[in-house]
Amino acid sequence: MSAALRSFVNGEEGDTVAALDRALHYGDGLFETMACLGGQVRLVDRHLARLTAGAARLGIATPAEAALRAELRRAASGHQRAVIKLIVTRGLAHSRGYAPSSSAMANRIMLVYSWAQDDGRAISEGVRVRTAALRLGENPALAGIKHCNRLEQVLARAEWSDPAIAESLLYSSGGALISGTMSNVFLVRGSGLVTPRLDRCGVAGVMRATVLAIAADLGIVASEERLVAEDLEGSTEMFLTNALIGIHPVRELDAVPLAPGPLTRRLQEALVARLADGGAHGG
Amino acid sequence: MSAALRSFVNGEEGDTVAALDRALHYGDGLFETMACLGGQVRLVDRHLARLTAGAARLGIATPAEAALRAELRRAASGHQRAVIKLIVTRGLAHSRGYAPSSSAMANRIMLVYSWAQDDGRAISEGVRVRTAALRLGENPALAGIKHCNRLEQVLARAEWSDPAIAESLLYSSGGALISGTMSNVFLVRGSGLVTPRLDRCGVAGVMRATVLAIAADLGIVASEERLVAEDLEGSTEMFLTNALIGIHPVRELDAVPLAPGPLTRRLQEALVARLADGGAHGG
Repeated sequence: MSAALRSFVNGEEGDTVAALDRALHYGDGLFETMACLGGQVRLVDRHLARLTAGAARLGIATPAEAALRAELRRAASGHQRAVIKLIVTRGLAHSRGYAPSSSAMANRIMLVYSWAQDDGRAISEGVRVRTAALRLGENPALAGIKHCNRLEQVLARAEWSDPAIAESLLYSSGGALISGTMSNVFLVRGSGLVTPRLDRCGVAGVMRATVLAIAADLGIVASEERLVAEDLEGSTEMFLTNALIGIHPVRELDAVPLAPGPLTRRLQEALVARLADGGAHGG
Repeated sequence: MSAALRSFVNGEEGDTVAALDRALHYGDGLFETMACLGGQVRLVDRHLARLTAGAARLGIATPAEAALRAELRRAASGHQRAVIKLIVTRGLAHSRGYAPSSSAMANRIMLVYSWAQDDGRAISEGVRVRTAALRLGENPALAGIKHCNRLEQVLARAEWSDPAIAESLLYSSGGALISGTMSNVFLVRGSGLVTPRLDRCGVAGVMRATVLAIAADLGIVASEERLVAEDLEGSTEMFLTNALIGIHPVRELDAVPLAPGPLTRRLQEALVARLADGGAHGG
């Protein structure tokens, strides 16, 4: 268990789960990957809201939010800088087969990982990005939420090993730009911001929501749209977001250079201010 | 752990797995559900071949087939009638994130469940079937293999609870008939057999392959095709297959009666003979 500093299963220190857990059998669960800074979970309200929405969609009876919040607080305390991953599963498979049991109690696994310093160069100079060969299947029933069926992301991430490439952009089987393997993507078009609509696939990131909220506060027009490859050509800036990295400008896509631009910089600055201000909560 | 009679983790009796297992985090694994009769695993060659093909597709380093075979033999011995489920995962997540580690060793979980007598009425009279509201996403990278990303099946199975309904037929997002939630589907058209092509989604069942092999032996024309809802209207018989049930005729689809027909009966008889004969192996 060297990869995790600490782990808790259903609130108790522990590093094993039952072999009958449905997340192991079917990926039947949800997760959140959270930044922990100064002993507090950043954007915890947004993370818990997404988890709750995912649980409602999948029909998973999650533990009470107050209890999860208390456990997160406990896991985060004393960690100046860490990543906390929370997995909530549908619980044990009391009988064989796909049918969820109405009596299943959700299991929760909380893992605390070390977290290196922010990648200052990625923040200032931007990152290099490629386009994935794999395309995401489309299923509105699973779109937007952060469920544990992530083989597409695993396969897409296995497409490259060059550490100089930070991320891969994924398109849907229908040809729409969706996201990175572990990030959301934004384009700057004119004076406005646009990000893929995630109603058929993709994960609606908490940092994506935060950036959209910041844009609204700053009076920047931002929209969620169906985007295709041609839309990249008409854009002047591109950046990636996730709960850990914040905003990383894209400085190269498939070996074509791109310049981190003024709107990206403005949003980065506003994000730093917002996270310093209220990041422990709503963000 | 009441649902399983016995469980083995990496060859040792045990009922827990590491909280870092990638199957728990991402559904990053494969499984086989096998009939065990008279102390032997039925269709074991086909099950192991599919597992191997799935592992090659996902880049999972499975244990040697001979070792798996020996473990299956050990798990099956002494069980006159049981179900054995084997899960092979990519192993532990040695670091956070989707990237598979090249050093990960696959984990294997083997669960032995009790198995009730065959459902004689389902075999003779047929089963009632409905059509799922959920549609399957299409991804050729994941089609055909029996991986652990099964939220679609979980959600589809949660659509109904009437025990008089045995199965639900699933269509793809593109409108093609694919399978049941836990079975493959065959139609009889004229004097021939047709079953959905599974190159975009669905699981290529071992019983499906066995039925196709039987059809070939009997000189029955059988093809894998892209089928749509209208193709059901032009068919005279319909049946479901999986490794445990064998062949179940469909006697009602969405409250419309269907008669189990002569070709279904012929295949059922041939299957019984084949499984009695060489079922412990190739089938």
